[in-house]
Amino acid sequence: MPTPPVFGHVGSAQPGDLFASRAELAQRGQHRPLQAGICATQEQGAESIVLSDKYEDDEVHDDYLLYTGHGGRSEETGQQVADQTLTKANKGLVRSQVTGLPVRVFRKVTAPAGSQAFRYEGLFRVVSRDCRPGRSGFLVFLFRLEPIIATVEAPIPARPYAQPGLFDRPAEAAEPTPRYEATVSRLVRDTAVTRQVKALHGYRCQVCGEQLATPGGFYAEAAHIRPLGAPHHGPDTLDNVLCLCPNHHALFDFGSFGIADNYALLGLPGQLRTQANHQPDMGQLAYHRQHIYRPLAASQR
Amino acid sequence: MPTPPVFGHVGSAQPGDLFASRAELAQRGQHRPLQAGICATQEQGAESIVLSDKYEDDEVHDDYLLYTGHGGRSEETGQQVADQTLTKANKGLVRSQVTGLPVRVFRKVTAPAGSQAFRYEGLFRVVSRDCRPGRSGFLVFLFRLEPIIATVEAPIPARPYAQPGLFDRPAEAAEPTPRYEATVSRLVRDTAVTRQVKALHGYRCQVCGEQLATPGGFYAEAAHIRPLGAPHHGPDTLDNVLCLCPNHHALFDFGSFGIADNYALLGLPGQLRTQANHQPDMGQLAYHRQHIYRPLAASQR
Repeated sequence: MPTPPVFGHVGSAQPGDLFASRAELAQRGQHRPLQAGICATQEQGAESIVLSDKYEDDEVHDDYLLYTGHGGRSEETGQQVADQTLTKANKGLVRSQVTGLPVRVFRKVTAPAGSQAFRYEGLFRVVSRDCRPGRSGFLVFLFRLEPIIATVEAPIPARPYAQPGLFDRPAEAAEPTPRYEATVSRLVRDTAVTRQVKALHGYRCQVCGEQLATPGGFYAEAAHIRPLGAPHHGPDTLDNVLCLCPNHHALFDFGSFGIADNYALLGLPGQLRTQANHQPDMGQLAYHRQHIYRPLAASQR
Repeated sequence: MPTPPVFGHVGSAQPGDLFASRAELAQRGQHRPLQAGICATQEQGAESIVLSDKYEDDEVHDDYLLYTGHGGRSEETGQQVADQTLTKANKGLVRSQVTGLPVRVFRKVTAPAGSQAFRYEGLFRVVSRDCRPGRSGFLVFLFRLEPIIATVEAPIPARPYAQPGLFDRPAEAAEPTPRYEATVSRLVRDTAVTRQVKALHGYRCQVCGEQLATPGGFYAEAAHIRPLGAPHHGPDTLDNVLCLCPNHHALFDFGSFGIADNYALLGLPGQLRTQANHQPDMGQLAYHRQHIYRPLAASQR
């Protein structure tokens, strides 16, 4: 039986940690293959990648990486001699774009003394991809990975009167059009539980039965019934999550519909689709009805 | 004609700036009403709020605020004497939750000398709401606001070998289950352009015609045809955005469907809905077809 993939930090490894060799990375479960740059399955996506100097189209920037997909290089010369295809490890990175799961990134570095090592750069997300001719003229896949920075957890020190504001962005980050996320109100914790509920329902929305098919596999979202975080403090447990399409996730979070104890939908026609091994908690459904669901006036529909 | 609302920073104001009085806040367009704590319309949401000490259920935490909605207080005693209702300014804050637009937050502070001022705390987003009995026993609306921190723009200094990792989170931010965003791949710039495209289409999806109705008004997303950021570097212009429901936004970004020059959908039945005053650019549609759209194999549908 193959080892199940591990997403996120492994062990006590922290960004900045150095590993002496690919063998050490493999032994410690940080990046398991000894040669391949991408550790991935098509079904679950990429766990980790290694940036070496083998791919001429790789780019490292301050706030993102462009990582070249796998394939098309000559074993002898290392040069790109053929088009890359959307297969194997490349499919795994496309899957990561769809799941949003974190990818561990390691980078080959050279010490002043000339010896080489692999530095852990931390957790990244695949945010977009491209397929275009590389420097060689052959088609390559380029994946854009951005570092995951846990902003909301970062404690912000309390400060006395007349010092800089409580929630300052660093001055250097100022930009004429700061980047917002339109979907920030649908922050979810990406945990074993949320992955489990999607797998249990085969990525099928429990409200409409929709299964969004993408080139990177099916896409669905896990919605917490009683939301995580203040003021709700819902638990991250299987009986407090639903598998929903993005539309019904937004509608559920914004309170357009609720769910009765018999799983009848309130505010929408029909019934919640359930599974024998996934029973949403009655108490949490009641909480959502009471605190979040607001029946729409006829004029709002 | 009422002044149109301004979302985001006003003028050169930066978090930490102090204002002597409500009159000064109003005069400078930072928070326009002289008395009300919430500056909002039901249609467009809240521009700004002021945290004073008038509402006993307000809470200020390191990384979020709980802000009590408007209403139900006695004019004489200032005490909560009635249930709050989802009307007026409270509806505006619910609208902000749906639009994701930034809200300016000001807080009353007391100088060591005893004099009072209003400090600009920066831009926040309404991420959830609750309606529950407050300390008084009467129902109050509690809005959770979180600071907007521009993470991806923050320049990350290049570092010499063997120093902490390029993309470290601060050590204090470490947590057993870091918070990820499942929808991070749908980062959009929230700009005049993206608001404009949603308004032009009445929040109706240009693919399916769906208009998601929520207690906070209609919800839709603006999707860039040629994505912003590397490797695509698409422009943030009206002819490079579409108004889509979250489902079709995800499918478009992941490449499940494309759009032909005659606006026929590729990979989906039907035709893009257009408006006389919103003509998507042919070149950008061609770019999306070439670089992002990947026809699904029959087995993937």
